[in-house]
Parts: sequence; C-alpha cells; structure tokens
Amino acid sequence: MASVFTATDIDAVNTIRCLAADTVQGANSGHPGAPMGCAPMAHILYSKFMTGNPKNPHWINRDRFVLSNGHACALQYVTLHLMGYDISMDDLKHFRQLHSITPGHPERMETPGIEVTTGPLGQGISNAVGLAIAERHLAATFNTDDFKVIDNTVYCIVGDGCLQEGVSSEASSIAGHLQLGNLIVLYDSNHIQIDGSTELAFTENVLERYEAYGWHTLYVENGDSDFDAIYRAIEEAKKVTDKPSIIRVHTTIGFGSAKQGTEKVHGAPLGDADIAHVKSLFHLDPTKKYFVEPEIYDFYAKVAAHGAQKEAEWNAMMARYKEANPEMYEEFDRRVYRNELPSNIADLLPRYTPSDPAVATRKLSETVINAIAPSLPEFIGGSADLTGSNLTHWKGAVDFQPAVLGIGNYSGRYLRYGVREHAMAAISNGMAAYGGLIPFASTFLNFISYAVGASRLTALQKLRVLYIMTHDSIGLGEDGPTHQPIETLSMLRATPNTIVIRPADGNETSAAYLSALTFTDRPSVFCLTRQNLSQLVGSSIESAMKGGYILQDVPNPSLILIGTGSEVEICVKTAQILIAEGIQTRVVSMPSTDIFDLQSSEYRHQVLPKGVPIISVEAMSTEPWYKYAHHPIGIDTFGASGKINDLYNYFGLTPEKIAVKARKVIEFYKSNPVPVIERLW
Amino acid sequence: MASVFTATDIDAVNTIRCLAADTVQGANSGHPGAPMGCAPMAHILYSKFMTGNPKNPHWINRDRFVLSNGHACALQYVTLHLMGYDISMDDLKHFRQLHSITPGHPERMETPGIEVTTGPLGQGISNAVGLAIAERHLAATFNTDDFKVIDNTVYCIVGDGCLQEGVSSEASSIAGHLQLGNLIVLYDSNHIQIDGSTELAFTENVLERYEAYGWHTLYVENGDSDFDAIYRAIEEAKKVTDKPSIIRVHTTIGFGSAKQGTEKVHGAPLGDADIAHVKSLFHLDPTKKYFVEPEIYDFYAKVAAHGAQKEAEWNAMMARYKEANPEMYEEFDRRVYRNELPSNIADLLPRYTPSDPAVATRKLSETVINAIAPSLPEFIGGSADLTGSNLTHWKGAVDFQPAVLGIGNYSGRYLRYGVREHAMAAISNGMAAYGGLIPFASTFLNFISYAVGASRLTALQKLRVLYIMTHDSIGLGEDGPTHQPIETLSMLRATPNTIVIRPADGNETSAAYLSALTFTDRPSVFCLTRQNLSQLVGSSIESAMKGGYILQDVPNPSLILIGTGSEVEICVKTAQILIAEGIQTRVVSMPSTDIFDLQSSEYRHQVLPKGVPIISVEAMSTEPWYKYAHHPIGIDTFGASGKINDLYNYFGLTPEKIAVKARKVIEFYKSNPVPVIERLW
Repeated sequence: MASVFTATDIDAVNTIRCLAADTVQGANSGHPGAPMGCAPMAHILYSKFMTGNPKNPHWINRDRFVLSNGHACALQYVTLHLMGYDISMDDLKHFRQLHSITPGHPERMETPGIEVTTGPLGQGISNAVGLAIAERHLAATFNTDDFKVIDNTVYCIVGDGCLQEGVSSEASSIAGHLQLGNLIVLYDSNHIQIDGSTELAFTENVLERYEAYGWHTLYVENGDSDFDAIYRAIEEAKKVTDKPSIIRVHTTIGFGSAKQGTEKVHGAPLGDADIAHVKSLFHLDPTKKYFVEPEIYDFYAKVAAHGAQKEAEWNAMMARYKEANPEMYEEFDRRVYRNELPSNIADLLPRYTPSDPAVATRKLSETVINAIAPSLPEFIGGSADLTGSNLTHWKGAVDFQPAVLGIGNYSGRYLRYGVREHAMAAISNGMAAYGGLIPFASTFLNFISYAVGASRLTALQKLRVLYIMTHDSIGLGEDGPTHQPIETLSMLRATPNTIVIRPADGNETSAAYLSALTFTDRPSVFCLTRQNLSQLVGSSIESAMKGGYILQDVPNPSLILIGTGSEVEICVKTAQILIAEGIQTRVVSMPSTDIFDLQSSEYRHQVLPKGVPIISVEAMSTEPWYKYAHHPIGIDTFGASGKINDLYNYFGLTPEKIAVKARKVIEFYKSNPVPVIERLW
Repeated sequence: MASVFTATDIDAVNTIRCLAADTVQGANSGHPGAPMGCAPMAHILYSKFMTGNPKNPHWINRDRFVLSNGHACALQYVTLHLMGYDISMDDLKHFRQLHSITPGHPERMETPGIEVTTGPLGQGISNAVGLAIAERHLAATFNTDDFKVIDNTVYCIVGDGCLQEGVSSEASSIAGHLQLGNLIVLYDSNHIQIDGSTELAFTENVLERYEAYGWHTLYVENGDSDFDAIYRAIEEAKKVTDKPSIIRVHTTIGFGSAKQGTEKVHGAPLGDADIAHVKSLFHLDPTKKYFVEPEIYDFYAKVAAHGAQKEAEWNAMMARYKEANPEMYEEFDRRVYRNELPSNIADLLPRYTPSDPAVATRKLSETVINAIAPSLPEFIGGSADLTGSNLTHWKGAVDFQPAVLGIGNYSGRYLRYGVREHAMAAISNGMAAYGGLIPFASTFLNFISYAVGASRLTALQKLRVLYIMTHDSIGLGEDGPTHQPIETLSMLRATPNTIVIRPADGNETSAAYLSALTFTDRPSVFCLTRQNLSQLVGSSIESAMKGGYILQDVPNPSLILIGTGSEVEICVKTAQILIAEGIQTRVVSMPSTDIFDLQSSEYRHQVLPKGVPIISVEAMSTEPWYKYAHHPIGIDTFGASGKINDLYNYFGLTPEKIAVKARKVIEFYKSNPVPVIERLW
C-alpha cells in the first residue's frame, strides 16, 4: 500500500513539535513533552481524517476532537493555528498569559476549535463519550434515508493519567455498553507520568481492560515516526461501527529533546539550547523562533479549504433537507442554531393551590418532567441507577441503547448510567457541548460529591445541565449520615456560575425547571425531597423565579424567618406559634440564593429590610447563611439514621424548638443594634 | 473431597436470610435482597475462614471483613449477632432507628465488628485495598523470622454497583499493581441493580477487567446453594499470595423470596406474607420472628470460641515477642495500643524568624516531613502522581512496592498512587482504620474535588488522615481556572469533623502538622502555596495552634484585617498603608477557622472584639467569611490563567486595592452600628 504521507507531512509534524516547544518556552511555563510526542497523531487526525471548517468552528456536523490530556494544549493551539483557526502567532506568543485566548489548559469558551475544557484528568475522554452519545442521538433524530444531517466522528487523545482516573473507567464502560462506534480514542502511551515511569503505579494491561469493556482495541508500536501505522489503525477503527475503538500508540514523550522519554520533559520548558537541538535534529532552522515555513501553511490551507468545501456541501444539502422535511428542519434550526426553548414550555408547567395534597418535591419534579419531556425533545438524560428513587423517568420515555440489545435505540432519550455519578456528569457536559441538547443528570444530592470533578466544569464551561438531585437532607431518614448532605450546598452555592434551587412545593418546583431551562449558560442543581411537603399558601411560579420572596407577611415584622425546601413549611408553623405570642413574623421562602442575588438591590431590601432580625432555617450546614441571616439554624454535624420525625426533632428543626431560639434572638436584639447584612459593594 | 459443610451450615445460612428479612421488615425500611443472596458467602467467611474474637473486635491481627455493598448491612448485623459480637436481638429490632447501634448503613464508630463505614458505593472495596496495604506494611515492619505479629487476610463482598464506580476501578488497578495477595474480594454477581437488569448498563466482562489489572480471578456458578464451590474458590484464592483475588459468585438477589431475582427485593421490605413463605421454604417456623434455633447459636459459639483461642495464642506469642524484641514491641505498643505520638515530635518541628528567606508553604511542608518522617514510622502515604509538585517525598523514603518489582518493598512508606485521587483518599481511610498508621494523601487542592466521596467519610469515620494539598489558589498561576480552587474551602470548612489549615509561613506550617497529628479523631486538610511566602513578624507555632491570632497589633484598632495563608502577607502590607494614613489596623492570621472555633469565647473576643469592623482576605469564595467578617474580600468567580502577579492584581488582591475597600468600610461604619458577628448560641 502506498503511503498517504509525503515529506511535507514529516515537516509539518516537526513544525508542530518545535512550535509547541517554542510556545512553552515563550511562556516559560507549560508542558512540551506530550505535544512533541502526540504531534503525529494530531497532524494525522486534523489533516487526513477530521472534517471541519476552521472559519466556522461551530458547524454542527464537524468532527469533534478532544485533547483529554489538556496540559498538552500547546499541541492543540499550534495545530489549530496551522489549520487556520482564529489563533494567531501572536496568540501563541501569549500562551498562558492573562486574557489571552491560549490559556494554560484548553477552555471551551476561550478559544476557537476547543470543544471542551480539559486539564483535570479523565474529563476529556468522558466528555468525548458524551459527544459521541449526542452525535448518535441527533443522527437518529434528524437523519432520514436521504439525508445524513448528523454524521461525524469523535476523536480523542488521552494519556496515561486520564486512563488511571476512575471517571474515565466509568465512561469507558458505558461507551462499550452503548456500542459507540463513532468514538475513536488514541492513547498516547509513553510510559511516563509525573512521578516517573508508569512502572511505579500503572502496570495493568490497558487494552485488555478496554476489551473487557467491549471496545475494539488496536496497537501502534512506533507512534513517533510510523505515520502509516497510525493512519492504518485509525482507518481500521473507522471500519468498526458497533464498538468504540482505542488505539494504543506507543510514543516517546518529548520526542527529539535531549531529555526525551523522561518525566523531565513533562511539565517544564526545554530551554533554548535543547530547543535548538530539536530543531537541528528535525532540519528546521535553530535560529528561528515561532517560525513556520510557508509550504507548511500552504499544506494546511489546502486541508482547511477541503473542510470549508465539505461544510458548503452540507449547507447545500440542508437547503434540500429543509424543503423535504420542513418540520424537522424547523426543530433542528430551533435547537441547534437559535438555541430557543419551545414557545409553550412555561404553559406546560403545573401550578398548585394550597388545597392540593402534600407531595414530595422529587415527585413534583416527576410531574414536571412528564409535562415537558414530550414537548422538549432536546431534554435527554437519566439517573445513576436510582431511577425509581429520583423519579426521572417519564411515561413513554425510550432508553438510549443500541437497538441490537432490544431495550431501546439511539433516538431514545433516557440514559441508564449505572452507578457512575462522575461519568454521568462528565458525559452530560459532553452532550451539552455538542449542541442541540439539554442534558439532565440525577442521583441523591449527597452523591454529587462523587461527581464534583465534572460538575464544576459544567459551570466553568457555561453549559446548561440540569442536576436533578433528590433525597436532599436528613429528611431521607433511615439511610443515615452516609447519604445525608451537610456541606453539599455550601460547596454548590460557592461554585461560580452555578444555580442551586431547593423548591418548597409544587409551584416552586415548576419554577425551578423554568429557571434552569432559561439560564442557557450555566448548570442548575435541584435539591428535592424524599418526603411529602404541603402546597404552601403564598407560593407561585412567578415569585419563586426571583429566588427568594415574601411567602407570608405581617404588618411591621419584628422577625423574619427564611426557609428553603422542606424547611419552609416548618418556618410557616414556627411563625404561627410566634404570631400567636405577638411576635410579628414574616416568612421568606428562598429556593435559590443564587437567583435572589441576581435581583435588584431594591427588591432584596424589600424582602429582607434593614433593622429586622433574620433567622434562616435549612437542614444542613449553616455556613452559607451568615450572608443573609443574623442567626442561621441548621445542622453542622453529620446526620443520623432514623425515622424522619425523630431526626428533625433530634436536630432541633421543629417549629417548637425553632420558636425557642427565635425568642432569644428577639430578646438579644432588643439591646443590640440589628446588623446590616449585605456586602457593601 | 468431602464437604466441610453439614446440615447445620445450611440451617445457619437460612437463618441469616430469614433474620435479615425480619430485621428489614421490622424497620419497615432497608434492603433484604442482598443479605439473602450473600448469606452463604458471609456464613462461609465468618465460620470457615476468618479469624477473630467477637469479644474483642479490636484485636489487631483479626481478619478484616468489609461489606462494600453497605446497604446490605442487615446481613452483617445478623451475622455479627450470631457470632456473639455485642449486638443483641434487641439491637436488630432497632435496625435503622435513631441512636441504635444498627444504623441504615454500617458505621465504623457505631457497631462492634464493623471495620469501615460503607454505603456510598465503591468505598468499601477501596478501603479494603487500604486495609490490605496496612497489613502488608505492618507485617513487613513488625514480623520477624520467628514471630508473625501481623498476618491476616482482608475479605470483602462487593456488588455490581461498587464495581461500576470509578473509585473501585482506581483502587483495584493499584491493588493489582501492588500484588496484594492478602485481599480476597467476593463479587455478588446477581445481575440486578436498582434500575433493573445489569443488562441495562453493565455488560462489560468484569473478570476479564480484573485480569487486566493483574488480579487472580475465579468464578462460582451457583452461589445460592453450592457452598462447596464457594469454599473451594476462597481456598484457591488464599493459595495465590502475589495477587489479589476476585471471586465472581453468581447469586440470586432475595433468594427464597417470591420476588427473588428482581430489583423489587433490593430496597424494600418483603412483607409478612413473603417472609412466611421464605421461612417455610427453608424449613423454619413461619410464625416466629427474630428467632434463632439454639443449635445455630451453639454452632457460632464454637466458631467464636475458636477465634478467642486464636487471639489467646497470639497474645501468648506477643509476650514472647516482647521479650525477644523489646524495642519493636514498644513501638508496636505505642502505635497500635496506646496510639501515642513519639514524645519528641513537637521538638522536631522547624521554627523560623522573620529574617529567614521567603519559601512556599509546600516547600516548608517538605521540610517538616523531612524532619518528622524518620521519627514517625507510622507516617505513610504519597501523592496522586504529583510528588515533585506536592513535595511529599522525604530523603531516604522507600516506596511501598512489591519487592519483586525492584523499586521498593512492603516496609516502604511512600505510596505511588498514580493519578487516582479518589482511591487515594479511600485507601487512606482503610489504612487509618487498620490501626497503627497515620496516612497522608496529596494532590493539588482543587483536585480534592475528585476525592470528596471518600474524604467526607474520613471525617464521618473519625479517622486521622492528613490531606496535604498544594497549589492552593490562583497563586498557582498559569495552569488556570481548571486547577484553581474557589469553592473548595467552603466545602471543606462546612464538612463536619474536618480541620482545614491554610498556613501563612514556616511557623504556621509546623503548627499545621502538630495540630493535625494531635487531632486523632479527624482529618486535616492543609492548603499550601506554590509561591514563596515571607516569614512573618509575629507568627509562632504556639499562636498558630489556636487557629487564629493577633499577628500584628496597634493600640485601639479601628479596623481588623483577617488573612489566611498567602493573603496574610498581603494584609500586613495593607495594614502598613492604612496605619501610615492614621487608620489603626490590626492584622489577624487565621490559618484555621475550625481550630479558632474551638477556642474559648473569651479568646475569640480578644482576637475579634466587638465594635471593630472586620475585613477578611482569602483568594477564593467569600462564603465562609460572613461568619467572621463584616466585609469579606475574595474571589467569587472562576480564576484565570496568567502570571501570579497579574492574577492577584486582576482579582483585586493587592494591598493598594484592598486599602481602597478598607477606607470605604471605615467610612460606612462611621454612620452605621458595627454588627456583632458571632452565633448567639
């Protein structure tokens, strides 16, 4: 077989290597080793296999590339630069500088051509699984016999570190089960990690493990210079359409450096002398920095032109698709291009009155899901094996499964994640990043702790993912402290760009969904009860959308009780006790401090006026409440196993016990000034 | 081969099944299916293989048993009851009730015979790896040719859910690498998880995966009634001493129930009718609840007596050991029985004066480790592949590795975790639970987010683990927002029973270690800088041990600046600016709010007196500071990639920018009362 490679390919790879080394050296910070080792893979993927248009990095049917070993991002920036993405040589010179578009790890929102934010190891390959699921699902949804609207491949480079992380194990096991033949992973196997040889800690047989997951496995012995072997392996991988593929590519970290093959080239610049040595070795001019021969730019310009032509052909096809399938096109346009919700979503949300029965908010959430899912086809997700507890399945939902298993198909929207919380969140990120989808993920609130490595990246990447978390407090009862969140909401509320919502009843649950769907650039975390809650007097969707509002009021309140979720009802009962004693008590329901903080200062002062003592009540850590309340009541120890009423009593969260504290607060502030609670600026 | 089993064994197993079903039914809450399916395994382990004395569950050389599928704890409580541990029938009747010793999931501190707290899936098997490491290490440390002081096996039952969790994958990969032949895992393979059949989400070949990890794998086709096959498999597993073993035991969930083999028996009581049916099927009296035939008690009493005799023999051996090896015995006694630190630890800690050079606290931590590790042989741990960055390796440290690899041995105390943060924490929990060891675990502070599922259980289990976290803020610079913690300390400070310490200089770093070693019943998390910090005027080990103290004072302060870690130096410089303007400014260093909260009210008021405005400065989420400060300054967005000075300037954390805010605070409180900041009760 004749090689598809010419001398220019070799020069191109060596140019990537040296330009990456220059980029790291210029910043005097970063990771040259992996870019130099992975340069052949990146070059072959971008120039021989991937379809995409550098001038329109948002073309929906582009092939996706994920650099799971994100610390190697100099590789990606350099390659994108050469391909003609909007990354200039000057951008490469500002690698790792504040406000540059070439930050220290790849960031989805910062740089054209970066699909997902990587760096925290194991995330990228797990995002890639999500991207591959999204592709299969959208293809099954929008393709017809005549039109392949969605038809792309997801490529991913991973290092040893990624494959040691549990999240990648979880995601890879699911990917094998789901038979994602559109996913091709190139494993940069260089035997080196930061501590030294992988012999120190990683002696498992990776390919055998992936075979056990149901993957197609391949091996390339010389990934440094045997480009044909890499090419053939990727070709082989593309032929296998019912299994994801992993190609173990044996490489030399820092290939070309005097220190190649050691951990010394991993995370520090090579130094000018070594870079000159590398350039000489590769027949490049050792005196030139940040230099690319014109023929190399020309080479990639041709590749880019080919990609642009592919997009043009696809656009032409879509014009025919629009004529042939106007309704499907309209949906595609709405979801993918306009990124708009169906216009009737707000009308579908259930509303409640106080005479409606007490229901758990997880159950109320199920009602919302059943109301909106049929009209919101971009809503896709599932539970980490707690479907019957999280109540996330809706009537008529079809499993996303390979059809051959006989239990669903790729047009299905319900995902069976198994007990894999971390991968669930990382996969949701991948699906959201693909476009045209609104993913949800569900487990017990406490077990978001397993997934935080990924859920914080949902927020950093400005992705809309709905985390539907149930069993949100000691109210879950007998399962005990291993399952009862305490610090969880402190963490989530302190996470930037994350909306935490703990609804108190049916109207607030409807509002939670409407808010979460409306915030297109951030995740929302719902905290839902296992136990039944009354439908409250004074609640409404509109009020709850403000994050916090006066639920029940009195003239000239001398005390304000703020509650969230299941504790609002307790605050109402406490207020009744206090009002009967002549203590004028306002009850504020605060389903979301994050949303409340977004309201005008005027509105916030109306709800929480100066000069009135404020008590907050929430059945977990009091830490977040010092910002809003003079006296936060909560639980600052671990929970316990027992019946719900016993627990609420034991932890002091009954109306009677709260009333005792309220009287002391009132008494205290008779002789002390009531503090202003709010940031000054 | 003649069977080792008699009819009594069958009756015993059926008694466990029915008593577990009664226990769940009595609570009207819990999980009967797994106990009924796993009863043969538990019976065979406890009665035929495990060595232990129910009257002394703390005997150090007992075999360890971990129920990784902790929701099946009725199995464990029933078996421990039958074996004669201090769990009465009345305790079984109070299953899952508040203040009972039989909580909804097994808890290490609550119940005799429970080695580790399980329930969050995947933790138990990962703890078991830690227990096995501890055993190998202590054996290598204390055994001699003549005396096998430590010589026990770690047994673990896991379910499908545990094996889907990433943490178990990480821990299992390490266990294979470390060749832990003293670990035997029985995999309860019942094809059922909560959502239904494992065919929905878990179709990988588990045993093939474990072979890839380097484990010895075995299969038992009929785990419901082929006791001989289970017995033989465990015997086989015990023979293989250079590999951990996993035995896939095919069972029927809820064996005996009318609903056996379905997810319906997983998490809800069977109901009285079904229980009567089960008892009839097993030839037990269907009219009797919580009933055990005397012959069954007799059977287990003999097993228990055998265990007691084993302990007596061991005690006799230890008397001889003490004579033959008095110094080793003294160390064993100190570490295992007295749980005391070496008396000279405090004297070993380095002290600094302001004329000493500026050094990063991670580097100061390395100095402490080098100072104490040789004298603190129970100090054992490592890094998740960031040794050169975390600086946790000490001079002369030997790797904990199987000797055959030629890179260490089991008496080594430095663990190469690979990039496996979650398993690192779970393994540390197992090592701490074993006894005689003080484990430490290290990675970048932000990546504790990968390990929180385990680190919260360190706190719940009251285990002493030192989390040595470096690169603790935007101060890490170029690596950017994926690596910079923001919400992390909010989460950790809100986690009960956890000590967070962010030292500002060398003396405070020494104090951090002394505090952490002294708190025997809780974990500590150190937050250490990448960047250099000056040695501060006014710091001392003794002051820092109080969590917060007046670092630099003025007469009649009109403002207090609280700083932590790298921001203390910035507060000092801010105070200099303000004092020059006539604003009398006190600087408080607060390395640990958790420890400060433990001081007397009098002391706390001395440091933070009423009536003086307080500003806190910490380069991350302000959430935790509203409890202490009137105006917290921090970072409530994600960080950024850039040079450290650019970042501190951009995020407003320079003395000049803080001084601007300070002046506004002073101005504001001229016309407003200065609030009392402190919980009232």
